[in-house]
Amino acid sequence: MLEIQNEHRCFGGTQRYYRHASREIGLPMRFSVYLPPQAEQGPVPVLFYLAGLTCTEETFMIKAGAQRVASELGLMLVAPDTSPRGAGVAGEDDSWDFGTGAGFYLDATQPEWNTHYRMESYVARELPALVAKALPADLARAGVFGHSMGGHGALVLALRHPDVFRSVSAFAPIAAPTRCPWGEKAFSGYLGNDRAAWAAHDASALMAARRAPFPGGILVDQGLKDNFLAEQLYPEVFEEACRQAGQPLTLRRHEGYDHGYYFISTFVEDHLRFHAAQLTA
Amino acid sequence: MLEIQNEHRCFGGTQRYYRHASREIGLPMRFSVYLPPQAEQGPVPVLFYLAGLTCTEETFMIKAGAQRVASELGLMLVAPDTSPRGAGVAGEDDSWDFGTGAGFYLDATQPEWNTHYRMESYVARELPALVAKALPADLARAGVFGHSMGGHGALVLALRHPDVFRSVSAFAPIAAPTRCPWGEKAFSGYLGNDRAAWAAHDASALMAARRAPFPGGILVDQGLKDNFLAEQLYPEVFEEACRQAGQPLTLRRHEGYDHGYYFISTFVEDHLRFHAAQLTA
Repeated sequence: MLEIQNEHRCFGGTQRYYRHASREIGLPMRFSVYLPPQAEQGPVPVLFYLAGLTCTEETFMIKAGAQRVASELGLMLVAPDTSPRGAGVAGEDDSWDFGTGAGFYLDATQPEWNTHYRMESYVARELPALVAKALPADLARAGVFGHSMGGHGALVLALRHPDVFRSVSAFAPIAAPTRCPWGEKAFSGYLGNDRAAWAAHDASALMAARRAPFPGGILVDQGLKDNFLAEQLYPEVFEEACRQAGQPLTLRRHEGYDHGYYFISTFVEDHLRFHAAQLTA
Repeated sequence: MLEIQNEHRCFGGTQRYYRHASREIGLPMRFSVYLPPQAEQGPVPVLFYLAGLTCTEETFMIKAGAQRVASELGLMLVAPDTSPRGAGVAGEDDSWDFGTGAGFYLDATQPEWNTHYRMESYVARELPALVAKALPADLARAGVFGHSMGGHGALVLALRHPDVFRSVSAFAPIAAPTRCPWGEKAFSGYLGNDRAAWAAHDASALMAARRAPFPGGILVDQGLKDNFLAEQLYPEVFEEACRQAGQPLTLRRHEGYDHGYYFISTFVEDHLRFHAAQLTA
Protein backbone atom coordinates (compact mmCIF):
# COMPACT_ATOMS: atom_id res chain seq x y z
CA MET A 1 0.00 0.00 0.00
CA LEU A 2 2.71 2.44 1.07
CA GLU A 3 5.80 2.25 -1.12
CA ILE A 4 9.07 3.62 0.28
CA GLN A 5 10.78 5.67 -2.47
CA ASN A 6 13.93 6.32 -0.49
CA GLU A 7 15.13 6.81 3.05
CA HIS A 8 18.01 8.54 4.81
CA ARG A 9 19.36 8.51 8.33
CA CYS A 10 19.06 12.02 9.80
CA PHE A 11 19.64 13.25 13.36
CA GLY A 12 19.38 9.74 14.74
CA GLY A 13 16.00 9.20 13.08
CA THR A 14 14.86 8.44 9.54
CA GLN A 15 13.81 10.67 6.66
CA ARG A 16 11.49 8.76 4.34
CA TYR A 17 9.69 9.44 1.07
CA TYR A 18 6.54 7.47 0.33
CA ARG A 19 4.34 6.93 -2.69
CA HIS A 20 0.88 5.40 -2.51
CA ALA A 21 -2.36 5.04 -4.46
CA SER A 22 -4.65 7.68 -2.96
CA ARG A 23 -8.33 6.86 -2.67
CA GLU A 24 -9.40 10.51 -2.37
CA ILE A 25 -7.17 11.84 -5.13
CA GLY A 26 -7.62 8.84 -7.41
CA LEU A 27 -3.96 9.03 -8.42
CA PRO A 28 -0.59 8.13 -6.91
CA MET A 29 0.44 10.65 -4.23
CA ARG A 30 3.75 11.26 -2.53
CA PHE A 31 4.51 12.41 0.97
CA SER A 32 7.55 12.65 3.21
CA VAL A 33 7.97 11.61 6.83
CA TYR A 34 10.62 12.31 9.42
CA LEU A 35 10.60 9.63 12.10
CA PRO A 36 12.38 10.80 15.24
CA PRO A 37 14.46 8.31 17.23
CA GLN A 38 11.69 8.13 19.86
CA ALA A 39 9.41 6.45 17.29
CA GLU A 40 11.47 3.28 17.72
CA GLN A 41 10.05 3.03 21.27
CA GLY A 42 6.40 3.60 20.40
CA PRO A 43 3.86 6.05 18.95
CA VAL A 44 4.86 9.72 18.90
CA PRO A 45 2.88 12.92 18.25
CA VAL A 46 2.61 14.01 14.61
CA LEU A 47 3.01 17.43 13.04
CA PHE A 48 1.71 17.85 9.49
CA TYR A 49 3.40 20.50 7.34
CA LEU A 50 1.62 21.98 4.33
CA ALA A 51 3.87 23.63 1.76
CA GLY A 52 3.25 26.60 -0.50
CA LEU A 53 2.70 27.15 -4.21
CA THR A 54 5.00 25.16 -6.55
CA CYS A 55 6.47 23.11 -3.69
CA THR A 56 6.47 19.36 -3.25
CA GLU A 57 6.68 16.87 -0.39
CA GLU A 58 10.47 17.42 -0.50
CA THR A 59 10.72 21.16 -0.03
CA PHE A 60 10.27 21.43 3.73
CA MET A 61 12.37 18.38 4.54
CA ILE A 62 15.29 19.69 2.46
CA LYS A 63 15.18 23.39 3.30
CA ALA A 64 13.69 24.01 6.75
CA GLY A 65 16.20 22.25 8.98
CA ALA A 66 13.37 20.97 11.19
CA GLN A 67 14.62 17.41 11.74
CA ARG A 68 17.12 18.49 14.40
CA VAL A 69 14.40 19.86 16.65
CA ALA A 70 11.92 17.08 15.81
CA SER A 71 14.59 14.59 16.84
CA GLU A 72 15.04 16.35 20.17
CA LEU A 73 11.32 16.72 20.86
CA GLY A 74 10.20 13.33 19.57
CA LEU A 75 7.84 14.74 16.94
CA MET A 76 7.02 12.95 13.70
CA LEU A 77 6.90 15.33 10.72
CA VAL A 78 4.65 14.55 7.74
CA ALA A 79 4.60 16.67 4.57
CA PRO A 80 2.25 15.86 1.67
CA ASP A 81 2.66 17.06 -1.90
CA THR A 82 0.79 20.29 -2.77
CA SER A 83 -1.64 18.93 -5.39
CA PRO A 84 -2.51 15.91 -7.49
CA ARG A 85 0.06 15.25 -10.22
CA GLY A 86 -1.02 14.30 -13.70
CA ALA A 87 -4.76 14.70 -13.17
CA GLY A 88 -5.07 15.63 -16.84
CA VAL A 89 -7.44 18.55 -16.34
CA ALA A 90 -7.22 21.04 -19.22
CA GLY A 91 -5.09 24.01 -18.15
CA GLU A 92 -3.75 22.47 -14.95
CA ASP A 93 -0.13 23.19 -15.89
CA ASP A 94 -0.73 26.65 -17.34
CA SER A 95 0.03 28.71 -14.23
CA TRP A 96 2.16 28.34 -11.15
CA ASP A 97 -0.57 29.51 -8.77
CA PHE A 98 -3.45 27.27 -9.89
CA GLY A 99 -3.66 23.56 -10.73
CA THR A 100 -0.54 21.44 -10.41
CA GLY A 101 1.46 22.46 -7.32
CA ALA A 102 -1.41 24.67 -6.16
CA GLY A 103 -4.19 22.49 -4.73
CA PHE A 104 -5.03 25.00 -1.96
CA TYR A 105 -5.93 22.15 0.44
CA LEU A 106 -9.61 22.12 -0.52
CA ASP A 107 -12.00 19.75 -2.30
CA ALA A 108 -12.86 21.26 -5.66
CA THR A 109 -16.55 21.34 -6.56
CA GLN A 110 -16.23 22.43 -10.19
CA PRO A 111 -16.49 19.90 -13.04
CA GLU A 112 -13.22 18.29 -14.06
CA TRP A 113 -11.35 19.65 -11.02
CA ASN A 114 -13.65 17.82 -8.61
CA THR A 115 -12.50 14.39 -9.75
CA HIS A 116 -8.92 14.56 -8.47
CA TYR A 117 -8.42 17.91 -6.71
CA ARG A 118 -9.61 16.72 -3.29
CA MET A 119 -6.72 17.88 -1.13
CA GLU A 120 -8.81 18.66 1.96
CA SER A 121 -10.17 15.10 2.19
CA TYR A 122 -6.71 13.78 1.41
CA VAL A 123 -4.81 15.84 4.00
CA ALA A 124 -7.41 15.92 6.79
CA ARG A 125 -8.79 12.38 6.48
CA GLU A 126 -6.98 9.90 4.25
CA LEU A 127 -3.40 10.85 5.11
CA PRO A 128 -3.79 10.91 8.92
CA ALA A 129 -5.56 7.53 8.79
CA LEU A 130 -2.80 6.14 6.60
CA VAL A 131 -0.07 7.46 8.89
CA ALA A 132 -1.85 6.11 11.97
CA LYS A 133 -2.08 2.67 10.38
CA ALA A 134 1.38 2.38 8.87
CA LEU A 135 3.66 4.32 11.22
CA PRO A 136 4.33 4.66 14.97
CA ALA A 137 2.19 7.81 15.14
CA ASP A 138 -0.24 8.83 17.85
CA LEU A 139 -2.96 10.62 15.87
CA ALA A 140 -4.71 11.67 19.06
CA ARG A 141 -1.79 14.10 19.30
CA ALA A 142 -1.60 15.75 15.88
CA GLY A 143 -0.92 19.34 14.90
CA VAL A 144 -0.68 21.17 11.59
CA PHE A 145 1.40 24.04 10.26
CA GLY A 146 2.33 25.40 6.89
CA HIS A 147 3.67 28.19 4.72
CA SER A 148 1.89 30.66 2.45
CA MET A 149 -0.75 28.56 0.59
CA GLY A 150 0.08 25.89 3.17
CA GLY A 151 -0.33 28.40 5.99
CA HIS A 152 -3.83 29.02 4.65
CA GLY A 153 -4.26 25.25 4.51
CA ALA A 154 -3.09 24.76 8.09
CA LEU A 155 -5.35 27.46 9.56
CA VAL A 156 -8.40 26.40 7.54
CA LEU A 157 -8.00 22.66 8.03
CA ALA A 158 -7.42 23.13 11.77
CA LEU A 159 -10.60 25.21 12.00
CA ARG A 160 -12.62 22.77 9.89
CA HIS A 161 -11.21 19.59 11.47
CA PRO A 162 -10.62 20.29 15.15
CA ASP A 163 -11.12 16.57 15.81
CA VAL A 164 -7.96 15.88 13.77
CA PHE A 165 -5.62 18.81 14.53
CA ARG A 166 -5.11 19.92 18.12
CA SER A 167 -2.52 22.64 17.49
CA VAL A 168 -1.91 25.03 14.61
CA SER A 169 0.66 27.58 13.44
CA ALA A 170 1.72 29.22 10.19
CA PHE A 171 4.48 31.01 8.33
CA ALA A 172 3.30 33.93 6.16
CA PRO A 173 -0.13 32.37 5.56
CA ILE A 174 -2.60 33.53 2.91
CA ALA A 175 -4.76 34.59 5.81
CA ALA A 176 -7.77 36.05 3.99
CA PRO A 177 -7.88 34.30 0.59
CA THR A 178 -11.34 35.59 -0.37
CA ARG A 179 -9.87 39.05 -0.77
CA CYS A 180 -6.52 38.45 -2.49
CA PRO A 181 -5.66 37.60 -6.12
CA TRP A 182 -4.24 34.10 -5.34
CA GLY A 183 -7.36 33.18 -3.37
CA GLU A 184 -9.79 34.65 -5.90
CA LYS A 185 -8.16 32.73 -8.72
CA ALA A 186 -8.06 29.46 -6.79
CA PHE A 187 -11.52 29.68 -5.26
CA SER A 188 -13.27 30.72 -8.47
CA GLY A 189 -11.49 27.93 -10.32
CA TYR A 190 -12.01 25.16 -7.78
CA LEU A 191 -15.24 26.31 -6.08
CA GLY A 192 -16.98 28.37 -8.75
CA ASN A 193 -18.10 31.98 -8.84
CA ASP A 194 -20.56 31.88 -5.95
CA ARG A 195 -18.56 33.74 -3.31
CA ALA A 196 -20.88 32.50 -0.56
CA ALA A 197 -19.16 29.12 -0.86
CA TRP A 198 -15.73 30.67 -0.42
CA ALA A 199 -16.05 31.82 3.19
CA ALA A 200 -15.93 28.25 4.47
CA HIS A 201 -12.33 28.11 3.17
CA ASP A 202 -11.10 31.48 4.41
CA ALA A 203 -9.25 31.34 7.75
CA SER A 204 -10.26 34.87 8.74
CA ALA A 205 -13.94 34.37 7.89
CA LEU A 206 -14.00 31.03 9.70
CA MET A 207 -12.25 32.41 12.76
CA ALA A 208 -14.50 35.45 13.07
CA ALA A 209 -17.49 33.14 13.49
CA ARG A 210 -15.96 31.02 16.29
CA ARG A 211 -15.40 31.23 20.02
CA ALA A 212 -11.64 30.79 20.69
CA PRO A 213 -11.31 27.39 19.01
CA PHE A 214 -7.65 26.92 19.97
CA PRO A 215 -7.25 27.59 23.68
CA GLY A 216 -3.53 26.81 23.39
CA GLY A 217 -3.17 29.81 21.08
CA ILE A 218 -2.03 30.16 17.47
CA LEU A 219 1.48 31.15 16.38
CA VAL A 220 1.99 33.06 13.11
CA ASP A 221 5.32 34.43 11.84
CA GLN A 222 5.40 37.04 9.11
CA GLY A 223 8.41 38.68 7.47
CA LEU A 224 8.10 42.39 6.81
CA LYS A 225 10.22 42.25 3.64
CA ASP A 226 7.90 39.61 2.18
CA ASN A 227 7.09 40.62 -1.40
CA PHE A 228 3.64 39.07 -1.13
CA LEU A 229 2.66 40.69 2.16
CA ALA A 230 0.78 43.74 0.90
CA GLU A 231 -1.21 42.13 -1.89
CA GLN A 232 -1.72 38.48 -0.92
CA LEU A 233 -1.38 37.69 2.78
CA TYR A 234 -3.47 40.01 5.02
CA PRO A 235 -2.30 38.89 8.45
CA GLU A 236 -4.00 41.93 9.95
CA VAL A 237 -7.38 40.60 8.81
CA PHE A 238 -6.74 37.31 10.58
CA GLU A 239 -5.50 39.22 13.62
CA GLU A 240 -8.77 41.15 13.79
CA ALA A 241 -10.77 37.92 13.33
CA CYS A 242 -8.90 36.34 16.25
CA ARG A 243 -9.65 39.42 18.34
CA GLN A 244 -13.36 39.07 17.54
CA ALA A 245 -13.26 35.37 18.35
CA GLY A 246 -11.34 35.84 21.57
CA GLN A 247 -8.70 33.55 20.06
CA PRO A 248 -5.21 33.95 21.58
CA LEU A 249 -2.84 34.71 18.70
CA THR A 250 0.89 35.36 18.69
CA LEU A 251 1.53 37.19 15.42
CA ARG A 252 5.21 38.04 15.15
CA ARG A 253 6.29 40.54 12.52
CA HIS A 254 9.98 40.21 11.61
CA GLU A 255 11.92 43.14 10.22
CA GLY A 256 13.94 42.28 7.10
CA TYR A 257 12.72 38.71 6.56
CA ASP A 258 11.20 37.66 3.23
CA HIS A 259 8.82 34.90 2.07
CA GLY A 260 11.29 32.06 1.62
CA TYR A 261 12.85 29.16 3.47
CA TYR A 262 15.68 31.24 4.93
CA PHE A 263 12.88 32.93 6.89
CA ILE A 264 11.18 29.63 7.74
CA SER A 265 14.41 27.92 8.85
CA THR A 266 15.10 30.82 11.23
CA PHE A 267 11.82 30.36 13.13
CA VAL A 268 10.93 26.70 12.59
CA GLU A 269 12.36 25.70 15.96
CA ASP A 270 9.89 28.00 17.72
CA HIS A 271 7.01 26.37 15.82
CA LEU A 272 8.05 22.84 16.72
CA ARG A 273 8.39 23.80 20.38
CA PHE A 274 5.01 25.56 20.25
CA HIS A 275 3.33 22.39 18.95
CA ALA A 276 5.26 20.03 21.20
CA ALA A 277 4.19 22.00 24.28
CA GLN A 278 0.57 21.31 23.35
CA LEU A 279 0.89 17.80 21.95
CA THR A 280 3.18 16.28 24.54
CA ALA A 281 1.64 18.02 27.58
CA MET B 1 33.13 44.20 -9.05
CA LEU B 2 30.95 42.04 -6.82
CA GLU B 3 27.34 41.96 -7.93
CA ILE B 4 24.72 40.90 -5.36
CA GLN B 5 22.29 38.49 -7.07
CA ASN B 6 19.93 38.25 -4.13
CA GLU B 7 19.93 38.37 -0.36
CA HIS B 8 17.80 37.02 2.46
CA ARG B 9 17.61 37.65 6.19
CA CYS B 10 18.45 34.42 8.02
CA PHE B 11 19.04 33.80 11.73
CA GLY B 12 19.64 37.48 12.38
CA GLY B 13 22.30 37.64 9.67
CA THR B 14 22.25 37.80 5.90
CA GLN B 15 22.41 35.11 3.23
CA ARG B 16 23.82 36.56 0.02
CA TYR B 17 24.52 35.32 -3.49
CA TYR B 18 27.22 37.05 -5.50
CA ARG B 19 28.36 37.04 -9.10
CA HIS B 20 31.65 38.49 -10.28
CA ALA B 21 34.10 38.44 -13.18
CA SER B 22 36.82 36.03 -12.06
CA ARG B 23 40.37 36.78 -13.08
CA GLU B 24 41.60 33.21 -12.54
CA ILE B 25 38.64 31.51 -14.22
CA GLY B 26 38.26 34.09 -16.96
CA LEU B 27 34.49 33.82 -16.73
CA PRO B 28 31.74 35.04 -14.40
CA MET B 29 31.67 33.01 -11.18
CA ARG B 30 29.07 32.77 -8.43
CA PHE B 31 29.49 32.23 -4.73
CA SER B 32 27.32 32.43 -1.64
CA VAL B 33 28.03 34.05 1.71
CA TYR B 34 26.35 33.85 5.06
CA LEU B 35 27.13 36.93 7.15
CA PRO B 36 26.46 36.33 10.83
CA PRO B 37 25.03 39.16 12.95
CA GLN B 38 28.48 39.69 14.52
CA ALA B 39 29.80 40.87 11.12
CA GLU B 40 27.91 44.13 11.67
CA GLN B 41 30.34 44.90 14.50
CA GLY B 42 33.56 44.12 12.62
CA PRO B 43 35.58 41.41 10.86
CA VAL B 44 34.71 37.79 11.72
CA PRO B 45 36.47 34.47 11.01
CA VAL B 46 35.61 32.80 7.70
CA LEU B 47 34.83 29.20 6.91
CA PHE B 48 34.97 28.17 3.24
CA TYR B 49 32.76 25.26 2.18
CA LEU B 50 33.56 23.26 -0.96
CA ALA B 51 30.65 21.28 -2.38
CA GLY B 52 30.59 17.96 -4.20
CA LEU B 53 29.98 16.80 -7.76
CA THR B 54 27.02 18.44 -9.55
CA CYS B 55 26.46 20.96 -6.75
CA THR B 56 26.50 24.75 -6.95
CA GLU B 57 27.11 27.67 -4.61
CA GLU B 58 23.50 27.21 -3.42
CA THR B 59 23.52 23.60 -2.29
CA PHE B 60 25.13 23.91 1.12
CA MET B 61 23.31 27.12 2.04
CA ILE B 62 19.93 25.56 1.21
CA LYS B 63 20.39 22.05 2.56
CA ALA B 64 22.89 21.94 5.42
CA GLY B 65 21.17 24.13 8.02
CA ALA B 66 24.51 25.66 9.00
CA GLN B 67 23.40 29.29 9.33
CA ARG B 68 21.88 28.71 12.78
CA VAL B 69 25.22 27.67 14.25
CA ALA B 70 27.24 30.21 12.23
CA SER B 71 24.96 32.91 13.65
CA GLU B 72 25.62 31.70 17.17
CA LEU B 73 29.39 31.36 16.71
CA GLY B 74 29.96 34.46 14.61
CA LEU B 75 31.41 32.59 11.63
CA MET B 76 31.13 33.81 8.06
CA LEU B 77 30.37 30.99 5.61
CA VAL B 78 31.53 31.22 1.98
CA ALA B 79 30.65 28.62 -0.66
CA PRO B 80 31.93 28.88 -4.24
CA ASP B 81 30.46 27.13 -7.25
CA THR B 82 32.05 23.76 -8.13
CA SER B 83 33.50 24.61 -11.55
CA PRO B 84 33.59 27.21 -14.29
CA ARG B 85 30.27 27.50 -16.15
CA GLY B 86 30.20 27.84 -19.90
CA ALA B 87 33.91 27.42 -20.51
CA GLY B 88 33.08 25.90 -23.88
CA VAL B 89 35.58 23.05 -23.69
CA ALA B 90 34.53 20.13 -25.91
CA GLY B 91 32.93 17.43 -23.76
CA GLU B 92 32.63 19.51 -20.61
CA ASP B 93 28.91 18.73 -20.23
CA ASP B 94 29.13 15.07 -21.21
CA SER B 95 29.42 13.56 -17.73
CA TRP B 96 28.35 14.48 -14.23
CA ASP B 97 31.73 13.65 -12.68
CA PHE B 98 34.05 15.60 -14.99
CA GLY B 99 33.89 19.11 -16.45
CA THR B 100 30.97 21.34 -15.51
CA GLY B 101 30.07 20.89 -11.83
CA ALA B 102 33.21 18.84 -11.29
CA GLY B 103 36.23 21.13 -11.17
CA PHE B 104 37.97 19.10 -8.45
CA TYR B 105 39.50 22.27 -6.95
CA LEU B 106 42.69 22.06 -9.00
CA ASP B 107 44.33 24.05 -11.79
CA ALA B 108 44.14 22.00 -14.96
CA THR B 109 47.35 21.67 -16.95
CA GLN B 110 45.95 20.01 -20.06
CA PRO B 111 45.24 22.03 -23.22
CA GLU B 112 41.77 23.52 -23.42
CA TRP B 113 40.99 22.73 -19.77
CA ASN B 114 43.87 24.87 -18.53
CA THR B 115 42.32 28.10 -19.79
CA HIS B 116 39.32 28.23 -17.43
CA TYR B 117 39.52 25.22 -15.10
CA ARG B 118 41.66 26.93 -12.47
CA MET B 119 39.63 26.20 -9.34
CA GLU B 120 42.62 25.90 -6.98
CA SER B 121 43.87 29.40 -7.78
CA TYR B 122 40.31 30.66 -7.63
CA VAL B 123 39.38 29.11 -4.28
CA ALA B 124 42.71 29.41 -2.46
CA ARG B 125 43.83 32.82 -3.76
CA GLU B 126 41.35 34.95 -5.68
CA LEU B 127 38.25 34.25 -3.60
CA PRO B 128 39.83 34.79 -0.16
CA ALA B 129 41.36 38.07 -1.36
CA LEU B 130 38.02 39.16 -2.78
CA VAL B 131 36.20 38.27 0.44
CA ALA B 132 38.81 40.07 2.54
CA LYS B 133 38.42 43.18 0.45
CA ALA B 134 34.66 43.33 0.05
CA LEU B 135 33.30 41.85 3.29
CA PRO B 136 33.85 42.13 7.05
CA ALA B 137 36.01 39.00 7.05
CA ASP B 138 39.20 38.37 8.99
CA LEU B 139 41.19 36.22 6.57
CA ALA B 140 43.89 35.65 9.17
CA ARG B 141 41.27 33.36 10.70
CA ALA B 142 40.05 31.20 7.83
CA GLY B 143 39.19 27.52 7.72
CA VAL B 144 37.96 25.17 4.98
CA PHE B 145 35.67 22.18 4.86
CA GLY B 146 33.78 20.33 2.20
CA HIS B 147 31.89 17.26 1.05
CA SER B 148 32.95 14.40 -1.23
CA MET B 149 34.81 16.10 -4.13
CA GLY B 150 34.75 19.19 -1.89
CA GLY B 151 36.10 17.14 1.02
CA HIS B 152 39.01 16.23 -1.23
CA GLY B 153 39.26 19.92 -2.10
CA ALA B 154 39.26 21.01 1.54
CA LEU B 155 41.94 18.53 2.62
CA VAL B 156 44.18 19.17 -0.39
CA LEU B 157 43.86 22.95 -0.40
CA ALA B 158 44.49 23.11 3.35
CA LEU B 159 47.63 21.02 2.90
CA ARG B 160 48.82 23.02 -0.11
CA HIS B 161 47.90 26.45 1.31
CA PRO B 162 48.52 26.37 5.05
CA ASP B 163 49.07 30.13 4.91
CA VAL B 164 45.42 30.56 3.90
CA PHE B 165 43.54 27.86 5.80
CA ARG B 166 44.20 27.35 9.50
CA SER B 167 41.61 24.63 10.17
CA VAL B 168 40.20 21.82 8.05
CA SER B 169 37.46 19.20 8.18
CA ALA B 170 35.49 17.08 5.72
CA PHE B 171 32.34 15.06 5.14
CA ALA B 172 32.86 11.82 3.23
CA PRO B 173 35.88 13.16 1.32
CA ILE B 174 37.42 11.54 -1.73
CA ALA B 175 40.42 10.91 0.47
CA ALA B 176 42.74 9.10 -1.94
CA PRO B 177 41.75 10.25 -5.44
CA THR B 178 44.75 8.75 -7.21
CA ARG B 179 43.33 5.31 -6.55
CA CYS B 180 39.59 5.71 -7.21
CA PRO B 181 37.62 5.98 -10.49
CA TRP B 182 36.42 9.58 -9.88
CA GLY B 183 39.95 10.73 -9.17
CA GLU B 184 41.52 8.81 -12.03
CA LYS B 185 39.04 10.29 -14.49
CA ALA B 186 39.46 13.84 -13.19
CA PHE B 187 43.24 13.77 -12.81
CA SER B 188 43.91 12.17 -16.19
CA GLY B 189 41.57 14.68 -17.83
CA TYR B 190 42.79 17.81 -16.05
CA LEU B 191 46.43 16.87 -15.28
CA GLY B 192 47.29 14.34 -17.99
CA ASN B 193 48.39 10.76 -17.83
CA ASP B 194 51.66 11.24 -15.93
CA ARG B 195 50.63 9.90 -12.54
CA ALA B 196 53.66 11.51 -10.89
CA ALA B 197 51.86 14.85 -11.18
CA TRP B 198 48.78 13.48 -9.43
CA ALA B 199 50.25 12.93 -5.97
CA ALA B 200 50.41 16.67 -5.31
CA HIS B 201 46.59 16.68 -5.44
CA ASP B 202 45.92 13.59 -3.32
CA ALA B 203 45.20 14.30 0.35
CA SER B 204 46.58 10.97 1.53
CA ALA B 205 49.78 11.24 -0.50
CA LEU B 206 50.32 14.83 0.63
CA MET B 207 49.65 13.99 4.27
CA ALA B 208 51.97 10.97 4.35
CA ALA B 209 54.89 13.26 3.43
CA ARG B 210 54.24 15.84 6.18
CA ARG B 211 54.88 16.25 9.88
CA ALA B 212 51.51 16.89 11.64
CA PRO B 213 50.58 19.98 9.59
CA PHE B 214 47.40 20.69 11.56
CA PRO B 215 48.18 20.64 15.27
CA GLY B 216 44.53 21.45 16.03
CA GLY B 217 43.54 18.14 14.48
CA ILE B 218 41.35 17.23 11.52
CA LEU B 219 37.72 16.16 11.75
CA VAL B 220 36.26 13.76 9.17
CA ASP B 221 32.74 12.30 9.24
CA GLN B 222 31.87 9.28 7.13
CA GLY B 223 28.54 7.47 6.81
CA LEU B 224 28.74 3.68 6.70
CA LYS B 225 25.71 3.37 4.38
CA ASP B 226 27.40 5.68 1.87
CA ASN B 227 27.07 4.08 -1.58
CA PHE B 228 30.40 5.57 -2.66
CA LEU B 229 32.39 4.48 0.37
CA ALA B 230 33.86 1.23 -0.91
CA GLU B 231 34.84 2.30 -4.40
CA GLN B 232 35.53 6.06 -4.25
CA LEU B 233 36.34 7.44 -0.80
CA TYR B 234 39.09 5.45 1.01
CA PRO B 235 39.03 7.17 4.40
CA GLU B 236 41.21 4.36 5.77
CA VAL B 237 44.03 5.40 3.43
CA PHE B 238 43.87 8.94 4.75
CA GLU B 239 43.71 7.60 8.29
CA GLU B 240 46.91 5.64 7.72
CA ALA B 241 48.58 8.69 6.16
CA CYS B 242 47.67 10.77 9.22
CA ARG B 243 49.12 8.04 11.43
CA GLN B 244 52.37 8.18 9.46
CA ALA B 245 52.43 11.97 9.66
CA GLY B 246 51.64 12.07 13.36
CA GLN B 247 48.61 14.14 12.40
CA PRO B 248 45.78 14.08 14.99
CA LEU B 249 42.63 12.91 13.15
CA THR B 250 39.12 12.37 14.42
CA LEU B 251 37.53 10.06 11.85
CA ARG B 252 33.98 9.26 12.89
CA ARG B 253 32.19 6.39 11.17
CA HIS B 254 28.41 6.67 11.43
CA GLU B 255 26.20 3.61 11.22
CA GLY B 256 23.28 4.01 8.80
CA TYR B 257 24.17 7.41 7.33
CA ASP B 258 24.54 7.86 3.56
CA HIS B 259 26.37 10.33 1.28
CA GLY B 260 23.79 13.13 1.17
CA TYR B 261 22.81 16.32 2.93
CA TYR B 262 20.64 14.57 5.53
CA PHE B 263 23.97 13.17 6.75
CA ILE B 264 25.75 16.51 6.47
CA SER B 265 22.99 18.45 8.24
CA THR B 266 23.16 16.01 11.16
CA PHE B 267 26.84 16.68 11.83
CA VAL B 268 27.43 20.17 10.46
CA GLU B 269 27.09 21.75 13.91
CA ASP B 270 30.06 19.69 15.14
CA HIS B 271 32.15 20.91 12.21
CA LEU B 272 31.35 24.57 12.80
CA ARG B 273 32.20 24.22 16.49
CA PHE B 274 35.42 22.39 15.58
CA HIS B 275 36.53 25.26 13.33
CA ALA B 276 35.32 28.02 15.67
CA ALA B 277 37.36 26.53 18.52
CA GLN B 278 40.49 26.97 16.40
CA LEU B 279 39.64 30.21 14.62
CA THR B 280 38.24 32.18 17.53
CA ALA B 281 40.68 30.92 20.16
